[in-house]
Amino acid sequence: MPHPPTPDQAFPPAQRDAVYRAIFERRDMRHFAGGTVAPELMRRLLTAAHHAPSVGFMQPWRFLRVASPALRRGLHALVEQERVQTARALGEREEAFMRLKVEGLIDAAEVWVVALADGRERHVFGRRTLPQMDLASTACAIQNLWLAARAEGLGVGWVSLFDPAAVACLLGMPDGAEPIALLCIGPVHGFYEEPMLQQQRWASRCALDDVLFEDAWGQPLDPRDSAGGVDRAVHTRLRPAGARSAPDGGSAG
Amino acid sequence: MPHPPTPDQAFPPAQRDAVYRAIFERRDMRHFAGGTVAPELMRRLLTAAHHAPSVGFMQPWRFLRVASPALRRGLHALVEQERVQTARALGEREEAFMRLKVEGLIDAAEVWVVALADGRERHVFGRRTLPQMDLASTACAIQNLWLAARAEGLGVGWVSLFDPAAVACLLGMPDGAEPIALLCIGPVHGFYEEPMLQQQRWASRCALDDVLFEDAWGQPLDPRDSAGGVDRAVHTRLRPAGARSAPDGGSAG
Repeated sequence: MPHPPTPDQAFPPAQRDAVYRAIFERRDMRHFAGGTVAPELMRRLLTAAHHAPSVGFMQPWRFLRVASPALRRGLHALVEQERVQTARALGEREEAFMRLKVEGLIDAAEVWVVALADGRERHVFGRRTLPQMDLASTACAIQNLWLAARAEGLGVGWVSLFDPAAVACLLGMPDGAEPIALLCIGPVHGFYEEPMLQQQRWASRCALDDVLFEDAWGQPLDPRDSAGGVDRAVHTRLRPAGARSAPDGGSAG
Repeated sequence: MPHPPTPDQAFPPAQRDAVYRAIFERRDMRHFAGGTVAPELMRRLLTAAHHAPSVGFMQPWRFLRVASPALRRGLHALVEQERVQTARALGEREEAFMRLKVEGLIDAAEVWVVALADGRERHVFGRRTLPQMDLASTACAIQNLWLAARAEGLGVGWVSLFDPAAVACLLGMPDGAEPIALLCIGPVHGFYEEPMLQQQRWASRCALDDVLFEDAWGQPLDPRDSAGGVDRAVHTRLRPAGARSAPDGGSAG
């Protein structure tokens, strides 16, 4: 029999379900409703980000608030440049891409630039062979902020359509610092029922089993270890929004 | 006045607090209590991971379960090699590093290798100038799994002390696939009160304000935008474990 976790280490079911709800209802938002974010709420989101794991506890993340309207317009112009370049690079999907809304920089209540700090070469723990773990840690921080924002009723969109050197220059970043995200944060009219790129038929979620292997690349997970279809009642209760047939979210159209 | 989010988009307070609880009580675990993880629980964690955001919805993540004891020992040996190499590279902190427990590969109920899939060069959306966004997406998937595991009462540790080429070879990964994490997952005797590296005085959490800027690198956030000390009641209620003085977790010793 599986060894159950000690009961007092697991959250009560209602709390556990709330965590899954944030995970399944979080969306990468591009449509915002303007407005503002109260400073104390913004600080809760940043505190959540700051409590992410980081390799060797190096805390490589920096969050820069874009308060100046001119600066926001400058960032928007850089994203627009890259949007056109990306469209060209996509070839046959150029037109479909150009129809997508890929950012909410002008409409979002808040715009924050997330960057990796300079001086990261000092941190060797967990990075000697994988120096890019600083980016991984910072992505975890952004995910924390994203989930907290969903619970607070705010949308977040991560825009990565920009030339990092141009953004670094615009914001006066020192050598070694690297912008990795323009975050649009704020009230939304509603959250997408499913990922916007799936709604727009740009891509669809693959089946969970397609990304699972056992012991060797390409070898399917042993069905006894994957429990597909087992405990269906729990899956149904925790079912992600927009997933109508498959308990794991399946491959929706 | 700040524009409040539409009430029905925010979670009820108890659900919101549960999300923050998972964020603040999640720990990078190195001490595990053996046991097993029920397959249906493991699948819930993987489903949470699979619902992470991904750049251009590319879903670059792959999760490989290490079922074979021999393979687990092989991974452990690779980590041990890199631990010694990292210690040497740390110079004066070599001995302090060697005293730290940096992985739980033998004791954890489950070991999963997380990798970036091969063939990622096809995905240009959001990656023409920032190709590393595939890693960022996969880190978000791991953070989802990590938070879900905390809510389920299970510990997770992300080990990045390994030579990625050696791990790729051991698991038969194709050219272009890249392992980024060895995840130890399972029951624990207890969660650390604060990050283990802080308990062991390896590093401490910096003050939130040290990682926040406004409009230009190095320029402090306008106090009116940061709300430090504002809404202290909410901060106290949501205060991270181990944070005794500062509302944002401060710089603990």
